Amino acid sequence: MRLIINSGGAQAIDDWRLHFQAFAPGLEVAGWDESVDPASVDYALVWEPDPGRLATFPNLKLIISAGAGVDHILADPQWPRHVPIARMMTSRTQTEMAEFVLTSALMLTRDIKRAVDNQARRHWEFFDAVRIAADLRVGIMGLGLLGVSSAQLLSRVGFKVSGWSRGASRLEGLPTYAGQEQFGAFLAATDILVCLLPATDATRGILNAATLSQLPRGACLINAGRGAHMVARDVIAALDSGQLRQAVLDVFEEEPLAPESPLWSHPGIIVTPHCAAIPDRRERARHAAFLIAANERGEALPNIYDAQRGY
Amino acid sequence: MRLIINSGGAQAIDDWRLHFQAFAPGLEVAGWDESVDPASVDYALVWEPDPGRLATFPNLKLIISAGAGVDHILADPQWPRHVPIARMMTSRTQTEMAEFVLTSALMLTRDIKRAVDNQARRHWEFFDAVRIAADLRVGIMGLGLLGVSSAQLLSRVGFKVSGWSRGASRLEGLPTYAGQEQFGAFLAATDILVCLLPATDATRGILNAATLSQLPRGACLINAGRGAHMVARDVIAALDSGQLRQAVLDVFEEEPLAPESPLWSHPGIIVTPHCAAIPDRRERARHAAFLIAANERGEALPNIYDAQRGY
Repeated sequence: MRLIINSGGAQAIDDWRLHFQAFAPGLEVAGWDESVDPASVDYALVWEPDPGRLATFPNLKLIISAGAGVDHILADPQWPRHVPIARMMTSRTQTEMAEFVLTSALMLTRDIKRAVDNQARRHWEFFDAVRIAADLRVGIMGLGLLGVSSAQLLSRVGFKVSGWSRGASRLEGLPTYAGQEQFGAFLAATDILVCLLPATDATRGILNAATLSQLPRGACLINAGRGAHMVARDVIAALDSGQLRQAVLDVFEEEPLAPESPLWSHPGIIVTPHCAAIPDRRERARHAAFLIAANERGEALPNIYDAQRGY
Repeated sequence: MRLIINSGGAQAIDDWRLHFQAFAPGLEVAGWDESVDPASVDYALVWEPDPGRLATFPNLKLIISAGAGVDHILADPQWPRHVPIARMMTSRTQTEMAEFVLTSALMLTRDIKRAVDNQARRHWEFFDAVRIAADLRVGIMGLGLLGVSSAQLLSRVGFKVSGWSRGASRLEGLPTYAGQEQFGAFLAATDILVCLLPATDATRGILNAATLSQLPRGACLINAGRGAHMVARDVIAALDSGQLRQAVLDVFEEEPLAPESPLWSHPGIIVTPHCAAIPDRRERARHAAFLIAANERGEALPNIYDAQRGY
C-alpha cells in the first residue's frame, strides 16, 4: 500500500517516513517528486497539489488534506471527483484554533496592538481603563468543529458568544443565527467578529464593506478562515473610517503576504503568518494513518468533503 | 464628612465628585490641592501621596489606596501608623488582572512577539508548530485574591497551574508550594513564571538571577506585580543567555519607563504600560463609598494592610 505526500517539500519526507513508521508500519511512503508507478498510489496526503497530478493516480482511494480546508485541492480543475477527500481535523487542531481565537480576542480586548506600537517607539502611554471579556460580544461565523470549539472556549473565559452559519446549526447554550435573513441581526449584536467559515464560492468575499457596515461602530475583526473571505481594501477602509477599530488577520489571499501589502503597516492590524492551527507532522501522520486504516476496514470516515455543502 | 482625593490629578476631581454623588451623596469631596481645614478630613483616597501630607490630617479615620498595592503609601516615611489602610480590591480588579495574565500567557504560548516584530519589518515567517496551553506549566508567585483569580482562569483555559507564596496558602484543586524551602521545586516545575506578589521588603528583587536560573531553560516571565520585584539587568541577561525565552513586563521600578531603557527594544520583551488592572473611577468610587459606609457603621473592612505581613 502506498501513500504519496505533498506537504513540507522534499526535505520533509524523511520526517514523514519516521512518523508513518510509528503509526502505519506497513505503509510505503513516497515523496511527491519521487518517481513511482502512478498505479501503485493508494492514498495521497496533500497541500496545494499541482493541478492535474492527482488525476494521474488511477487507483487512488482517498485524498487526505494536510489542513482543515479542502479549497487548495478543489482549486485543481482536474481533481478526481470520484475520490473522497478527508479534511485534517484533529482534536489538537480544534484546541489550537480555539486558543488562537481566544488569544486574538483578548489582544483586541486589551489593545495590545497599541501597546506594541508604543513599545516600538519607546513611548509610555497611560491606559485610562481596560475592558474585560464580559464587556464584549463575540460573533463567530462558521459553526463547524473549529467554530464550536472556539465558541466554547471564549464563553468559558467570559466573553458573550453567539454564532452564525449559512445553514441552521446548534451551539450548546449559546445563541445562534442562520442564513442570510438573520445575518444582519447577528452582525448588529457583535463587537468582535470571528471568521471561521470554510472557503466556498458562497463565502468568498463575505468580509466586505456591506458586511462590516452592519457591525456596531468600533467593532473588531478576527479572520482565521481563509484570505479569500476578506476583501482587503474594504477591511482597510473600515479601519480608516473607524467603523472597525482593530483586526487580527491570520490568512491572506496570497501567502506569504507580499512585502508591499498595506496590511503590514496599518496601525489597526495585527498580522500573523497563517499560524492559527498547525498540527505538527507527527499529529498529522497519526491522523492520516488512522484514516487509512479505517478506510481499509471499510468504515465511514469523519470530516469528508461534501460537494453539496461545498466543504 | 470629608474625603480628600489624590488620584488622577486636579483635572479628575469633577469626575470623582460625580461618581461619589451617586454612591455617597452626603460626602464632601475635596481635591488634594484644594485648601481645606486639615481637621475636617475624615477619609483619604490616594495614589503616591506627597510624603508627610497624610500626617497633617489629625482626624483621619481611613486611608484608601487607589490601587491594589499599598507600597506607594508606605513609601511616605511619615504615614500615620495608627490609621488603617484599605487596598483597592474589587471583583472587577481581580477579573482584569486574571485576564491580563491570561492574555500574556497566551501571547507567550503563541509567540506573538515574534509575529509583531516580523510584522514591523514586513517579514512573513512560517511557524512550524504551535504550542497550546496544556503544553505549559504556569507558576504563580503570590496567592492573594489576584493570584487566586488568575490561577483559576488559567486553569479553566487548560494551562497546568501551580502557586507559590511565602506563607502556606491554598489554591483549590491546584498544587501549591510554600516558603523558601519549596521555592526551588516550584521554579523547576514552571514554564511561565507569573509574579503577583505584594511589594514588601521580603519580595524586593525576587526576580533575580538566582531565581531565574532555577527555572527550566527557555522559560517565560510575566511581571504584573511591581517593578521593584525585578532586577532588570538580571532579566535581560537571562533573556540574552536563553535561560528565559520571553517576558511580558507591565510594571517598572521607574514609571513611565524611561525612553532610554533597554527593556523597550529587547526582542524577547513585551512592554505594557502598567495596564494589567485599572479599575475605572466609577468602580473605585463605588468601592471607596462602600468602605466609608462600612467604617462609619463600625464594621470590619476587607483587605486592610497588615504591618506583620507587610501588605
